[in-house]
Amino acid sequence: MNRRMYLHDVALAEAMGRFQEALEQAGLWGPLETETVSLEHALGRVTAEPVWARLSSPSATSAAMDGYAVRTSATRLASDRAPIELALGTEAVYVDTGDPLPVWADGVAPIEVAEVLAEFVRLRAPIPPWSNLRPVAEDIAAGDLVLPSGHRVRPVDLGALGSSGATSLSVWRPPRVAILPTGDELVPHDQAPRPGEIIESNSLVLAGQVEAWGGIATRLPIVRDERSTLRQAVLQAALDHDLVLVNAGSSAGSEDFTAEVVESIGRVLVHGVAVRPGHPVILGMIEAHERRVPVIGVPGFPVSAALTGEIFVEPLLARWLGRLPHDPPLVPAILTRKVHSTAGDDEYLRVAVGRVGERVVAAPLPRGAGVITSLVRADGIVLIPAGTQGLEAGDPVQVRMYLDPEWVNRTLVALGSHDLCLDLIAERLPRRGRRLTSANIGSLGGLIALSRNEAHFGGCHLLDPETGEYNLRFVRQYLPGRRVILLGFIRRTQGLLVATGNPKGIRGLSDLTRADVAFINRQRGAGTRLLFEHLLAQERIEPAAIRGYTQETYTHLTVAAAIASGQVDCGMGVEAAAAQYGLDFLPIAEERFDLVVPEDHYRSEVFQPVLEVLADLHLHRAILALPGYRLPDIGRVLHVVGP
Amino acid sequence: MNRRMYLHDVALAEAMGRFQEALEQAGLWGPLETETVSLEHALGRVTAEPVWARLSSPSATSAAMDGYAVRTSATRLASDRAPIELALGTEAVYVDTGDPLPVWADGVAPIEVAEVLAEFVRLRAPIPPWSNLRPVAEDIAAGDLVLPSGHRVRPVDLGALGSSGATSLSVWRPPRVAILPTGDELVPHDQAPRPGEIIESNSLVLAGQVEAWGGIATRLPIVRDERSTLRQAVLQAALDHDLVLVNAGSSAGSEDFTAEVVESIGRVLVHGVAVRPGHPVILGMIEAHERRVPVIGVPGFPVSAALTGEIFVEPLLARWLGRLPHDPPLVPAILTRKVHSTAGDDEYLRVAVGRVGERVVAAPLPRGAGVITSLVRADGIVLIPAGTQGLEAGDPVQVRMYLDPEWVNRTLVALGSHDLCLDLIAERLPRRGRRLTSANIGSLGGLIALSRNEAHFGGCHLLDPETGEYNLRFVRQYLPGRRVILLGFIRRTQGLLVATGNPKGIRGLSDLTRADVAFINRQRGAGTRLLFEHLLAQERIEPAAIRGYTQETYTHLTVAAAIASGQVDCGMGVEAAAAQYGLDFLPIAEERFDLVVPEDHYRSEVFQPVLEVLADLHLHRAILALPGYRLPDIGRVLHVVGP
Repeated sequence: MNRRMYLHDVALAEAMGRFQEALEQAGLWGPLETETVSLEHALGRVTAEPVWARLSSPSATSAAMDGYAVRTSATRLASDRAPIELALGTEAVYVDTGDPLPVWADGVAPIEVAEVLAEFVRLRAPIPPWSNLRPVAEDIAAGDLVLPSGHRVRPVDLGALGSSGATSLSVWRPPRVAILPTGDELVPHDQAPRPGEIIESNSLVLAGQVEAWGGIATRLPIVRDERSTLRQAVLQAALDHDLVLVNAGSSAGSEDFTAEVVESIGRVLVHGVAVRPGHPVILGMIEAHERRVPVIGVPGFPVSAALTGEIFVEPLLARWLGRLPHDPPLVPAILTRKVHSTAGDDEYLRVAVGRVGERVVAAPLPRGAGVITSLVRADGIVLIPAGTQGLEAGDPVQVRMYLDPEWVNRTLVALGSHDLCLDLIAERLPRRGRRLTSANIGSLGGLIALSRNEAHFGGCHLLDPETGEYNLRFVRQYLPGRRVILLGFIRRTQGLLVATGNPKGIRGLSDLTRADVAFINRQRGAGTRLLFEHLLAQERIEPAAIRGYTQETYTHLTVAAAIASGQVDCGMGVEAAAAQYGLDFLPIAEERFDLVVPEDHYRSEVFQPVLEVLADLHLHRAILALPGYRLPDIGRVLHVVGP
Repeated sequence: MNRRMYLHDVALAEAMGRFQEALEQAGLWGPLETETVSLEHALGRVTAEPVWARLSSPSATSAAMDGYAVRTSATRLASDRAPIELALGTEAVYVDTGDPLPVWADGVAPIEVAEVLAEFVRLRAPIPPWSNLRPVAEDIAAGDLVLPSGHRVRPVDLGALGSSGATSLSVWRPPRVAILPTGDELVPHDQAPRPGEIIESNSLVLAGQVEAWGGIATRLPIVRDERSTLRQAVLQAALDHDLVLVNAGSSAGSEDFTAEVVESIGRVLVHGVAVRPGHPVILGMIEAHERRVPVIGVPGFPVSAALTGEIFVEPLLARWLGRLPHDPPLVPAILTRKVHSTAGDDEYLRVAVGRVGERVVAAPLPRGAGVITSLVRADGIVLIPAGTQGLEAGDPVQVRMYLDPEWVNRTLVALGSHDLCLDLIAERLPRRGRRLTSANIGSLGGLIALSRNEAHFGGCHLLDPETGEYNLRFVRQYLPGRRVILLGFIRRTQGLLVATGNPKGIRGLSDLTRADVAFINRQRGAGTRLLFEHLLAQERIEPAAIRGYTQETYTHLTVAAAIASGQVDCGMGVEAAAAQYGLDFLPIAEERFDLVVPEDHYRSEVFQPVLEVLADLHLHRAILALPGYRLPDIGRVLHVVGP
């Protein structure tokens, strides 16, 4: 098999340097051509030249009030006892606000003080010189700088442009970017995938990025993994685009043709960048149609693809558009979890960010390159430079924000156990000016996070086998010395999820030790895992006897998905997850799932909308529409624990 | 004359309350209808419903590396001494990264460790269970919440939507807003105005705002000031729009038909809001085509118009689009100048913002409603609530930022004398990552501002009549105890500007006392004013003898504009300003115009790009292309003053 490993695995700065050098040599490291647009189409465009005022505004000294334009020296002696009269039309001329004054006039007598007779205007007080008028050019003088070059046009700028006599504007033309997805396994996002097929959605992300950054994106049809086809498609795309993004085909797999194609019609500058996620990026420059066109091989994993856009495409588009690269706001925060180093790579760690008490916390999200939801849920990025020894929990970090920093103070951080019903809360918060960021770290993990004040609240369903009571003992144990509210939320039915029709005939826990039954477990620290262990102990079943006991997953829905895919036969979870996948369900127990809320957060302004949502009958109805839920306690303070 | 004064002049909160109440009654205080868009057109749209995942991603457990899918239990005993062999195609199946695994497989042997023989794959080490694979639903499980409702779609969201099986999206439809300019004096911005005509540019600003806020704007043709025409136009606009903005015609002048028209086809809710600038706003609700349509009478002054958009239109569009109103970032700053109260009005004070040393300063910009450039130059707004006793210099304020707060630290604040050549510097800074915000407060004003550390530098051209030396004595006097750099900038020719052809035959300063000559002066504290006073004293000319001596304006170009408009005959200024307006110029003296820079700012990182620009030959060429400039000192340190 003829395969090529990463040619290089160069540092990010080095990769960018090589790319810039090649672009400079091609005369492509600066704005593209200019174009002229009318003011109607200028919003958001970047000025290619400074704009100097052609006309003054106001173009003549004008009335600032409705009234009579007068020569003020003629009114100097006016008084109540000796009013003066000015001839209408010659000595006193009616003007509306904005009307130009006759050149002989140097003031306006407001209508309120002018007594209008048949042919005269009578005044009983002097009009001060230069009063009630707008001097010529008060706003803009012809020759003034209206906008510098490199300025992104805002709505108010259009007013100044129009008033100063500009009718059109010279702006940098937007770059045209072709996006070329490749891969035999890909299907367009609007077609239903068959087994083994993958929905092609990276081109949507890349096109969205290009549009958001001021470029024009063309999403081209998916190209099959065939060298000459890809070569032809790249050459064709280069014909009328400034940049070609070839998506996927850039791993070291057998479908890796991008590098070879670029090499055959130009030069691969970099193959493999020491940045994570992102690694197998290709930077190249091809010769096509007598000009040079940069090509970027974008990795296929969705997070890598999106970050490749941010790291390599955005700065290039910025330069082509004559503006500075995007410089995200930085927010200082405290890292909630230890993060191991990734050796020689710059790592772009996705984090969720929220203010908890006095501190802003940054909670690391899943690091896998395939987890696009980690980027959807990310409020920002912590850049961990290559060579760093990893980061400890509690370390201060700077977060490059995706989220508007104003929202940090309106964010509720929930760490603990997850339930579908928490999504139903999350869904109702934005309209109340809040957002919920949550990570499913299990009930126990949530209590530990609360003890470190890293979250506002957490879902918790921990059974104390000795008392049969939920949560109370654990909250006392993990949050000693702190006043904590146990807030009632849901009761839900836990049980065994099995494939539709229960083909393996599973009737209870004892069937899990059968050799033909593959089980999937929940992670340690999850309430469901503890419940499962408790039930096994009751029935004296040895965990080691269960095939798949060590195979862990993190949510009820992923348990259900694994069973639905046919890979395993059984797992433990809630009835609603079974229903979602059409699985059979063997109920075992109803459990209480509370929200654990330290009292200071419970009383804080940021939390109040959660209480509103819990009281909302629409929420109750939505939860009760799911199978296996009851709401006898929702929104009630069940216990106040602590001093 | 039948005229109607402001019906009411209600407080802002009261005005908004009345408007909201009327909208609620009409069922218009919430999102408009939904519409379905394909993912290709979803960017920036706001979700009308939560999006739950239809499909899992990955849809099956998949290879995370290129290699061979195996049943890991079959490899458990593999070792170097006793390799195991698996039958190709049945026990070991080749998979590329991303390929789904056969359901019987629970791990991937990477190609690097697999020895491929004709019909077998040989392994010399065990493959751990569940290694090198991505579990089904690792990223997204069917049933997961992908996006809440009320979420504005970003590029990465498109990836998650596509991967989770969404092909289209339910979003709130964008509001349609009609913009109807009215006024006999208005001409479209793309026509040359005749004397007395005003360029209609407010509709560009309002349309830009509507588009920026997610609406669809229709700019309608200008309507003449004729009641039945306006009535017809408003009714017509209401036919296919959700909101009608009638611009101008809302002052209490004789052209004020908007309120009457609204009253004739509906109800005026508010006429006049106690907010400055903005005052004569009309809020109304009309009945047209069997539905109710809100109408806003937008004041004609450009700043009032733009702020009316921000205050009344943006929150309404936000509500119609199911998102929260825009909440600008707040930046704490120190006010540089005293601001007098405006009694019963909420004032929206425009300010320029920059960090000078350790403090962020907010410099008030002109307060007039007609000065659109004050809004163009504004970095933010300081809201001064009605009833406040005004603000003092040095008072702490919160600035509602227009500018990205990240730019505050890259802003150079120049306060002092102005020259066209400062614009040429400003124009070259953005590409170097800086911006210049400047206010023309005269040379002396600039030194005072520097003494209060409110600026990084200032232009200064103050002649010491006793020594003939420039600036030195004044810097010593106003900035004692501080090390200050006098940085060479320009030499420029000052003189008298007179109308083209010099019709009044002005030959020198002594002609200014003639009864037929009207003069326009510069403001006190301006270097040009001091030079003029010095020259008058030399020639023993009494200021009171000069007609217009007390009439002040603020820049060379506004002096020139006043002369060009025919309103005055003569003023003092630089040759370049005369040239700009084709005026005649009588040279009097060449003066030195330096940049005064405290040493700490001179050495700061933020200032360095100014030195680069001063050394740039393109700048020199641009300045020397203007008449009356020489550059013997540009960029040279002329003096280091102080301890």
